[in-house]
Amino acid sequence: MNKEQLFEAIKAKQSFLCVGLDTDINMTPDCLKGSDDPQFEFNKAIIDATAPYAVCYKPNLAFYEENGVKGWASFEKSCRYIRDNYPDIFIIADAKRGDIGNTSMMYARAFFDANLVDAVTLAPYMGRDTVAPFLEYKGKWSVILALTSNASAADFEMQPLANGKRVFEEVLERSKEWGSDENTMYVVGATKASMLKGVRDIVPNHFLLVPGVGAQGGSLKEVAINGMNAQCGLLVNSSRGIIYADKSDQFAVVAEAKAKEMQIEMSELLNKYL
Amino acid sequence: MNKEQLFEAIKAKQSFLCVGLDTDINMTPDCLKGSDDPQFEFNKAIIDATAPYAVCYKPNLAFYEENGVKGWASFEKSCRYIRDNYPDIFIIADAKRGDIGNTSMMYARAFFDANLVDAVTLAPYMGRDTVAPFLEYKGKWSVILALTSNASAADFEMQPLANGKRVFEEVLERSKEWGSDENTMYVVGATKASMLKGVRDIVPNHFLLVPGVGAQGGSLKEVAINGMNAQCGLLVNSSRGIIYADKSDQFAVVAEAKAKEMQIEMSELLNKYL
Repeated sequence: MNKEQLFEAIKAKQSFLCVGLDTDINMTPDCLKGSDDPQFEFNKAIIDATAPYAVCYKPNLAFYEENGVKGWASFEKSCRYIRDNYPDIFIIADAKRGDIGNTSMMYARAFFDANLVDAVTLAPYMGRDTVAPFLEYKGKWSVILALTSNASAADFEMQPLANGKRVFEEVLERSKEWGSDENTMYVVGATKASMLKGVRDIVPNHFLLVPGVGAQGGSLKEVAINGMNAQCGLLVNSSRGIIYADKSDQFAVVAEAKAKEMQIEMSELLNKYL
Repeated sequence: MNKEQLFEAIKAKQSFLCVGLDTDINMTPDCLKGSDDPQFEFNKAIIDATAPYAVCYKPNLAFYEENGVKGWASFEKSCRYIRDNYPDIFIIADAKRGDIGNTSMMYARAFFDANLVDAVTLAPYMGRDTVAPFLEYKGKWSVILALTSNASAADFEMQPLANGKRVFEEVLERSKEWGSDENTMYVVGATKASMLKGVRDIVPNHFLLVPGVGAQGGSLKEVAINGMNAQCGLLVNSSRGIIYADKSDQFAVVAEAKAKEMQIEMSELLNKYL
């Protein structure tokens, strides 16, 4: 999916919501426990309930790997289910991979060759080699970690460099030259919404994937005010706040309500700030 | 496996060789192509051939993920094969994972709960949160990226900070406080062997995982001179230089010879510099 198509989906749905599929097999509602593949069945119910309000799903690989081979099968099945039933929805594998060239190429193949997803999150520590093989895929996206929503982002990301920039700013400055706003996005945490303005000075046209709204405490309005650009430029993720809003057999109904609630707020923000 | 046991294995085998299982399903020798699980069969042959000369195996997850669900099964099967047949051998999952707390905990479970491996490589970009859940596991290890062997290590790892340290030095300084030399190792590339002395000033007692000898051009002797400590403190990895030294049906015989060659050189270096 290219940038224009993503923006079209955002306008059509009046939403820039990304639903994080951090599906914990240990938290499966009782009503799914008899299923052969509860992780997939949970996702399927969440996807069907929230698809009218979301433009993006973001399965978090850790939660599938924790279940080993079976988990990887659930991840793949979930991606294919979205592809088959909601072809206008963007999929991000939240994998935070990052390695040197020949290994990075293997990761790119793992996620892109079978067209499982549109994008993969990548850790920039090892530099350009990490990202380059992913950028070879036309129509696919690298989502590079810049400023994350966790407390220990202060350890390295926020450190000032001798050149006056902070590490995450250097990541933005350098990596924006590797690709373009047509194949690169950045992770910028909503818990640091006031810093989004500074990020926008460096990458005015890139899409930003913004976690940390909801469970982690970030404000959607602050994110929109500081981060929205002329093509929206935001995918705001909510995981636990939607998928685990309710743990009974009504989980999908409650997830739908929570997603709809965010979509309504997003629609208002799009009308006001776009 | 604890540090003392690892050092005992190094002394017993007179080797600090780690064999990288970067097993590319696309490069399977013809003689294995009829097998149900050529990736595992390849590993099994390599492991049986090289186990007398190696103290560590390092499966590189990218090469298994590239083969999807089947690849994950081959990865798990390969780890179990090592566990069952060579219980004195250390296993590192080269996964370069790194995420915030609750996600990082899931990755830790994925690799440690089933006792598949002894250690996982981790990217420190997001700070302490990335590593903390792994350090909760007694007898398990976090192998943190410090200074990698690739050219684009210059992009961020080598950048000078305002405090006078380079980013990788800040990673060493901060992260050595998170755990200890009993549960943390560092990746330091052999292509930067001259910089190992500086690394040793910061982390004199930690084990270092050193890739980049062989195919990437690093010198084993330089690594030993600059990096060895009183408990050896080195695991030197070779992947392609051993496992793809020969691509015929003689691949395991040639891999054995290559591993033995390195073990002999390592034995000399241990006698000289330990």
